[in-house]
Amino acid sequence: MTAYLIGIDFGSESARGVRIDLATGRQEASRVHAYRHGIVTGALGGRALPPGFALQVPADYLAAAEDILTHLGQGREIAGIGIDFTASSPLPARADGTALADLHPDAPHAQVKLWKHSAQAQADAINARGGAFLAPFGGRVSGEWLLAKAAETASAAPELWDETERFIEAGDWLVWQLTGEEARSLDFAAYKAQYSAEAGYPEGVVPGLAARLAPPRPVGSPAGALTPDWRRRTGIVGAATVAVAAIDSHGVLPAVGAVAPGLFVGALGTSAGFLVLDGTARGLPPGLEGAAFGAALPDLWCHEAGQAAFGDMLAWYVRAFPRDGDLSRNFALHNAAAASVPPGSDGLIALDWFAGNRVPLADSRLSGLVLGLSLKTRPEAIYRALIEALCHGTRAILDTALAGGVPIERVIMTSGLTRSNPLLVQILADTLDRPVEVPEIDNPTAVGAAIHGAVACGAVAGFAAGAARFGARDCLIYRPDAGRAALHDRLYDQYRRLAADTALRESMHALQAFRP
Amino acid sequence: MTAYLIGIDFGSESARGVRIDLATGRQEASRVHAYRHGIVTGALGGRALPPGFALQVPADYLAAAEDILTHLGQGREIAGIGIDFTASSPLPARADGTALADLHPDAPHAQVKLWKHSAQAQADAINARGGAFLAPFGGRVSGEWLLAKAAETASAAPELWDETERFIEAGDWLVWQLTGEEARSLDFAAYKAQYSAEAGYPEGVVPGLAARLAPPRPVGSPAGALTPDWRRRTGIVGAATVAVAAIDSHGVLPAVGAVAPGLFVGALGTSAGFLVLDGTARGLPPGLEGAAFGAALPDLWCHEAGQAAFGDMLAWYVRAFPRDGDLSRNFALHNAAAASVPPGSDGLIALDWFAGNRVPLADSRLSGLVLGLSLKTRPEAIYRALIEALCHGTRAILDTALAGGVPIERVIMTSGLTRSNPLLVQILADTLDRPVEVPEIDNPTAVGAAIHGAVACGAVAGFAAGAARFGARDCLIYRPDAGRAALHDRLYDQYRRLAADTALRESMHALQAFRP
Repeated sequence: MTAYLIGIDFGSESARGVRIDLATGRQEASRVHAYRHGIVTGALGGRALPPGFALQVPADYLAAAEDILTHLGQGREIAGIGIDFTASSPLPARADGTALADLHPDAPHAQVKLWKHSAQAQADAINARGGAFLAPFGGRVSGEWLLAKAAETASAAPELWDETERFIEAGDWLVWQLTGEEARSLDFAAYKAQYSAEAGYPEGVVPGLAARLAPPRPVGSPAGALTPDWRRRTGIVGAATVAVAAIDSHGVLPAVGAVAPGLFVGALGTSAGFLVLDGTARGLPPGLEGAAFGAALPDLWCHEAGQAAFGDMLAWYVRAFPRDGDLSRNFALHNAAAASVPPGSDGLIALDWFAGNRVPLADSRLSGLVLGLSLKTRPEAIYRALIEALCHGTRAILDTALAGGVPIERVIMTSGLTRSNPLLVQILADTLDRPVEVPEIDNPTAVGAAIHGAVACGAVAGFAAGAARFGARDCLIYRPDAGRAALHDRLYDQYRRLAADTALRESMHALQAFRP
Repeated sequence: MTAYLIGIDFGSESARGVRIDLATGRQEASRVHAYRHGIVTGALGGRALPPGFALQVPADYLAAAEDILTHLGQGREIAGIGIDFTASSPLPARADGTALADLHPDAPHAQVKLWKHSAQAQADAINARGGAFLAPFGGRVSGEWLLAKAAETASAAPELWDETERFIEAGDWLVWQLTGEEARSLDFAAYKAQYSAEAGYPEGVVPGLAARLAPPRPVGSPAGALTPDWRRRTGIVGAATVAVAAIDSHGVLPAVGAVAPGLFVGALGTSAGFLVLDGTARGLPPGLEGAAFGAALPDLWCHEAGQAAFGDMLAWYVRAFPRDGDLSRNFALHNAAAASVPPGSDGLIALDWFAGNRVPLADSRLSGLVLGLSLKTRPEAIYRALIEALCHGTRAILDTALAGGVPIERVIMTSGLTRSNPLLVQILADTLDRPVEVPEIDNPTAVGAAIHGAVACGAVAGFAAGAARFGARDCLIYRPDAGRAALHDRLYDQYRRLAADTALRESMHALQAFRP
């Protein structure tokens, strides 16, 4: 009987699963399941939610898992199962794994607080108090992380907090449901709850939190086998070893062949996330956002970084200044027009801070800028200047890693814009003056999850072997052009000067007062 | 028999004349005549012109004058005639007034060098040598002024320069043709040839130039009576006293009631020109562009300033990002949308340097900027930010005059945008925190010319009387709103900071290298 892997990527709106043939290493089938309640932002149980709330209903994940596992696995021998999940998306549960959301369906703080739910006030308070646990994260936690969300629940819903016996990432909770084992992931723990092997979870940050967190296990560990109940519901047979979960942005790494030090790996979507894989302990390079060892992948440091706006900046322009037809047609028209504009966008330069700057300035009150406008400026030159600004922003992050001593040998870019916007990827290669590799693989994050399952069930010896056997087999390479790269180098110098202009940043701060 | 005045405004593309009834003081008729050859920029006599050349054919002015004077004056008693003209628009002539263009119709340097023709290299050389005559002009002449154009002709066409017995502004030349008298205007001489009552024309700047210039007479002086030949050609009867000519932007002053010190008078067109009327000798206020006494109007200092881009900046936006229909419809749509955006344009600020900055920085290599962009920025907020930037630029000029010690008691705005864009005028009033007066009068520059004719022929005792009798009788007043003015004051503070950021200006200079 042929054996298979199943990987499931739990995203913000839906879950996507793939089935891979262990023998051939190829994807055979995929399945997408949209969450019944989606992202709950407006109201819950007829009551309006506060601004900034973004909740999910944990039962939706179970329904998605059942549908996908059944569709992909029914009657098949499944060797391993892996789960990637958004993070930090924690929920409160009882010691037996019962989600408090099932008991209190109308209580906001009983639901999953999705990654984009921000408990900023609590994060600010935690950061103001400080602590050694903040050092690997540039001295600050985000309002989107577990500690801030736990603090919010503890202070805003103390009775629920009293009832909370486990405060757990939804990915870990789902693995618990599938296996009966509370096998938390070091990936979530290190990056979202500031756990370290040396110090454990931070103490004294949120009253009683430590008792609600269990010690984590490394990614690629087996959490356990699929329970009899789940086998009955899905029709899955075989070992069905479930791996501990991984953060979705990390889980994708083996699928795109990123399992070695010296890699700069980007996911270019509406925003951009970057991972810097490093083999040497050197602390957090100044300006990057977070660093942990062995959490995203065993035996590697993985530093995080990102650009707060990326594809959505181009979408803003295309929507604000449509040329013709629908969004997709407009993107095509704008990209075609911008391709005819030479590097330097007819003398324009822009700052890509339309949603603030994450790295290296960590300042959400910054804003976008376009400079060099004249009475002859063409709209396509502005669009190109925005693309160039995004690429400059990426180079600023890569340079931040280099300045921190991290050697970067290869650049790998994934996600939507690498397929939809080849002009942008070429400009990125010219701006970085490095080849940019774009792995060709469908459903990469779900495949990455399946590789976690393969490692956990012992089908491969480790992630490098898993990447080689199940990851991308082809790669588009965008190579820099020496002439264009020299021009972009001069442009980047101008970008760098503008980005360093503190008077500009003060203006941006002051103008916040005039925002609607 | 009823007596009349005729005023003619010779603009860049056409001349516009009005007939005014001396008894009622009212305009009775008008006439527009487009120049046969328009502005000659591409080629002359089948040969391509160098870049920057903008020529006119002097015979075109005679044809326009004959048509307009005939149409407005035939069979009528004309007491006085006044002429406003673009400047500096000089031409070479013989001592008998014959234009060299008539003798050398295919020679570029024999034609009128229209104001927008720039002899920048010669201006740069003159400015590099320096001289006391530059002091009232901030230390520099423009490539658009007479001295630079004479230097260009002398060096580029020496045989033509040898044949040149008079180098004369087209306005003065036209008056000479109409009257037989070479009666040059102090207005042209002071502002465009750096003549002063004390020092005369500057010496040693262009070889032999002084011998080709005649001493000027004050505006409002009679140059002479219309010649018998012109009476025969036009059918005009009566005294027909022709006034010495005036620069068009100055000639308009009495028509809009601007004949007293303490006035800040703007003409808001594609670019913006400002005149500051002052009763006290204090030298050129630092940052303003030029100052002369008694030249624009008797007994008054008149300081010049301007914004290099104004209405054309809004036209750029409307053309680049059309909403619907033709330009006029698009302006209406953009203005209507921008009117709903509050002061501060949702947190945007712009610099109005799309064609460089004239005052106070005198730097044509600057460029436009928009700062404060976010993923939520609305197109109408950008448009409003451009309007606010124009108003900030105007305030920067007014503040430059105040800083130079010039008292400003009233603000008067004229020209196209005051009628077509009331939103802009209201924002200007709020930004300046002063009432903005918009005189209501048709053909104001031609009416101003007619008032020069009235003064010259003695129909009125002077310009104040002429303004009262023939100038605008009504005035729209845009009053500032205290709440909005307070907001605009904070915004202007941000504009001022950005404008003072030398790093920004260096970026703008550097980016010039990437312009097409």
